[in-house]
Amino acid sequence: MVNIQEVNKYLYKYREEILPKYWYNIIPDLPKPLPPPMDPKDTNSRIELLQRILPKEVIKQQFTIDRFVKIPDEILEKYVVVGRPTPLFRAIGLEKFLDTPARIYFKYEGALPTGSHKVNTAIAQVYYAYSENVEGVTTETGAGQWGSAVALASSLYRLKSIVFMVKTSYDHKPARRSLIEFYGAEVVPSPSKITRFGRSLLENNPDHPGSLGIAISEAIEYALEHGYRYVMGSVIDVVLLHQTIIGLEAMRQMELIGEEPDIIVACVGGGSNFAGLAYPFIGLRNKGKRFIAVGSAEVPKFSKGEYRYDYPDTAGLLPLLKMITLGKDFVPPPIYSGGLRYHGLAPSLSLLIRERVVEAIEYREVEVYKAARIFAETQGIVPAPESAHAVKAVIDIALEARKRNEKITILFNLSGHGLLDIDNYKSMMIRYGRF
Amino acid sequence: MVNIQEVNKYLYKYREEILPKYWYNIIPDLPKPLPPPMDPKDTNSRIELLQRILPKEVIKQQFTIDRFVKIPDEILEKYVVVGRPTPLFRAIGLEKFLDTPARIYFKYEGALPTGSHKVNTAIAQVYYAYSENVEGVTTETGAGQWGSAVALASSLYRLKSIVFMVKTSYDHKPARRSLIEFYGAEVVPSPSKITRFGRSLLENNPDHPGSLGIAISEAIEYALEHGYRYVMGSVIDVVLLHQTIIGLEAMRQMELIGEEPDIIVACVGGGSNFAGLAYPFIGLRNKGKRFIAVGSAEVPKFSKGEYRYDYPDTAGLLPLLKMITLGKDFVPPPIYSGGLRYHGLAPSLSLLIRERVVEAIEYREVEVYKAARIFAETQGIVPAPESAHAVKAVIDIALEARKRNEKITILFNLSGHGLLDIDNYKSMMIRYGRF
Ligand SMILES: Cc1ncc(COP(=O)(O)O)c(C=O)c1O
Ligand SMILES: Cc1ncc(COP(=O)(O)O)c(C=O)c1O
Repeated sequence: MVNIQEVNKYLYKYREEILPKYWYNIIPDLPKPLPPPMDPKDTNSRIELLQRILPKEVIKQQFTIDRFVKIPDEILEKYVVVGRPTPLFRAIGLEKFLDTPARIYFKYEGALPTGSHKVNTAIAQVYYAYSENVEGVTTETGAGQWGSAVALASSLYRLKSIVFMVKTSYDHKPARRSLIEFYGAEVVPSPSKITRFGRSLLENNPDHPGSLGIAISEAIEYALEHGYRYVMGSVIDVVLLHQTIIGLEAMRQMELIGEEPDIIVACVGGGSNFAGLAYPFIGLRNKGKRFIAVGSAEVPKFSKGEYRYDYPDTAGLLPLLKMITLGKDFVPPPIYSGGLRYHGLAPSLSLLIRERVVEAIEYREVEVYKAARIFAETQGIVPAPESAHAVKAVIDIALEARKRNEKITILFNLSGHGLLDIDNYKSMMIRYGRF
Repeated sequence: MVNIQEVNKYLYKYREEILPKYWYNIIPDLPKPLPPPMDPKDTNSRIELLQRILPKEVIKQQFTIDRFVKIPDEILEKYVVVGRPTPLFRAIGLEKFLDTPARIYFKYEGALPTGSHKVNTAIAQVYYAYSENVEGVTTETGAGQWGSAVALASSLYRLKSIVFMVKTSYDHKPARRSLIEFYGAEVVPSPSKITRFGRSLLENNPDHPGSLGIAISEAIEYALEHGYRYVMGSVIDVVLLHQTIIGLEAMRQMELIGEEPDIIVACVGGGSNFAGLAYPFIGLRNKGKRFIAVGSAEVPKFSKGEYRYDYPDTAGLLPLLKMITLGKDFVPPPIYSGGLRYHGLAPSLSLLIRERVVEAIEYREVEVYKAARIFAETQGIVPAPESAHAVKAVIDIALEARKRNEKITILFNLSGHGLLDIDNYKSMMIRYGRF
C-alpha cells in the first residue's frame, strides 16, 4: 500500500511543495447555479446509463458540490510516476523575439509521457474503475491523444483497456495506434465486429469510415455488455475537476518565484485543459485577472454557437448538457488540431463565458501555424497544434503589451507537444509555406 | 545581453541550485594519459582540417586539460530555455513491478524538446559557431536525432543550418525530416547536388542510397567551401565534455534527496550520454561505485572490438582516434536503435573500459524490446530504443538485487524517449510479438 508520506519521499522537497493533495471544484464558486445534465423526453434515461458505465466515484465527483476533492494516494503516486508536477517555464526565448515587456510563463503538460494533459484524468478515472475490481475500461479515440492516455493509465494499474479508434484514424494515424498498443491496450477499428452496433454498420457498409459518435456508442455498448467501465476525455465536470491539478500546481509554482499572472490563456476543445489551468485562479484568486479561452475559427463555437441544451456526443447517447454548441451534427472542417474539432463546450466554461468571466477568441489555422513555428524556433518545443492556438493568443497579447509598454505577466497552458503531429505540420508547411 | 543573475531569475530556487555553471572534463583524471588524436601517414592533415571547420572554442575545449570548463551565460540561458535542469525520476512503478529492494533513479534527457540528450552539445557547438559570426553550421544525420538537435540549437541562435540526411532515412523517416524543417533548417538528401562529392556520386548512381560517411564528407565539404562551421554529435572529447551537464545535475539532485548511487548505467553508441551521466561520478565521486556501459549485441564492439587507432568516420576524413572499434568498415545489422549502430567508441571511454573502471555489457534487440515494453507499462514513458538498452541492464541488476536482498541504489540515464521511434517499435511488436 502506498501512503502519501511514501509518495513524498520520491520527490525532491520542492516538487512535493508543489504537488497539490486536492482537486479544485469550481461548481460552488460559479456566478450562477450550473444548469444540470438532463434527460431527453424519450424513454431511455441517459443519466441512468452513465451511472451504469462510469465508476461510482466518478459519478459522485461529477455531481459533487464540495469545493475540494481529495486526491487518493494511489492516484498521487501515479501522478508522480508519470512526472507530476509538470514544469513551469518562463518563455524567455519568445519574450526576446517579441521584444515585449510582458513576462510569459507556461505550464508544460506536454512533459507527460503521451505528450498532453489527457493523462491527468485518465489516471483518475482508470484508478476508480480499478478500485471496483472490474476487468477493464473502454473508450473511444479520434486522432489518438485520448486513447494513448487511457492505454497508459490502464497499464499503470494493470487493467485491460479497449480503445475504439475511428476507422479513418486507425488507417491513417499508425503512430498513435502503435503507441496505444505498445502500452498493452487493444485498439479496435470502429465500426468493429465486437459490438452489435458496429456489426450492424459493417453489414450495410463494410468500408464504413467510422466517426467519433460511433466509437463512443461502441465503447459504451462494450462496457455495458462486459462489465467494463467507460472513461471520458473531456467536457463533463469531473474531467475538468481532475485537470485542475494543472492550475493548482501552477499557482504554487508562480508563488515560489514571486509572480502573479495578470492574464491566463489556454486553448479550448471540450474545455478541460483550459479549466485545468484557469479554474483554480478563477475560483480562488481572480482579482485583477483576465481569462482567455482560445478556439479555432474553423470550429466557430464562440462566434456562431448557441447556448442551449445539446448532446455532448454525436450519437446522442449521453445526457443533454446546457452548453455553447454548434449542434451535435456540426461537421468541422479537416483542420489539423484534432482535439479542437468538437461542437460543444463544457457546461461550466460555457456559463463562465456567458457571464463574461472568461473571454473567448478564435484564430484561423494559418495564423496558428505561424505561431507554432515561432514558438518552436524560439523555445525549442514543438507545440501541439491545439496548444498553438494559445501560443497565438499569447503572442498577440505580448505584442499589444509592447505597444502600450505594459509589464504584464501572462500564464498559458502548453497542453501538449506536437512530436506526434509532425506529419500534420508537414502538411501545413506545404499548405501555408515556410517563412 | 544575458548574465547569469538574469538566468537565475527565470528558475525556481531549487532548479537554480541544480544547474551547474561548469562542464566537467575527465581528461586530467583518467587513470592513464589519453592517447591523442593522430594523423594518418598520408598527405592531408585531418587535425588541421578539424581546426578549419570546428569553431575555435570547440577545438580549444577538445584539447583542454582543465578539470572544469565554464559554461558561458549565453549557453546557460538556452539550456534553461529548452528545459534544463532535466528531471530526475525515481522509477517506483518499475521497482514495484520487479519487487526489488533496489531503489532505481533515472535522469530523463527525453524531457528535452527533440527528445534526447543530443541538444546539450548542439547548443554549445552552435553557440560557439554563432559567436564567430559565421552564416551557419552543417552536419550529417542518420535517423535524425542529431539533425533535429542541431536544427533546434540553430534556430535558438537564429543561425542557418544545413543537415545532410542519409538518403534512405530522408526517404523513410519523414517525421524526423519534417521536424528538422519545422525548426527552419534545410534538410538535404545525401548524396546531394550541393557538394562536389555528392555530385560525383550521383553521376555514377542517381539512386545512391547514401551513408553516414558520405553525409559527413558532404557536411565537411560544404562547411569548408562556404565558411560554415561543422558540428559533431558524439565520440570526440568535447562532445562528452558538454554532456557532463547531465551527471553534474544528477549528482546535485541525488544530494538534495539524500541519495548516493551505487551503480550507474547508460547505453553506448559513440559514448556521449554514458560519459555525460557517469564521468562526473567517475572523476569526482567514485568511491564504492560500479559503472556499467550497455551496448548492442548486434554491434558487438565490447565483445569483438579491438583497441587501436581507427577513423571515427567511415569516410576517413577525421583524425585517427585510439579506441575500441569494430573497424570503420563494419556494417551493423539493421537494428532499430539507430544511435547504437556505430563501429567505434569515444577514446576516453575506451580507455576506462580497458582499465576496468567501467564495465561493459551487451544485449540483443529482442531482450531490449521486452525491457522497453515493461518500462512503458510501469513508468509510462516509452524509452528510445537506444535508452532501452540501459533499462534492460537495470532490470537485470534490480532482479539480482532481489535475489541477494541488497538495498542498492541504481542511477541510469534515460537518454531519450521513443515517441518518434514508434514505427520501429511497431515493427518490433510484429517481429517479437506482444506479451
Ligand atoms: C494537446 C491538446 N490540447 C487541447 C485539447 C483540447 O481538449 P480540451 O479542451 O478538453 O483540453 C486536446 C484534445 O485532444 C489536446 O490533445
Ligand atoms: C536517445 C539516444 N541515446 C543514445 C544514443 C547513443 O549515442 P551516444 O552514445 O553518443 O550517447 C543516441 C544516438 O543517436 C540516441 O539518440
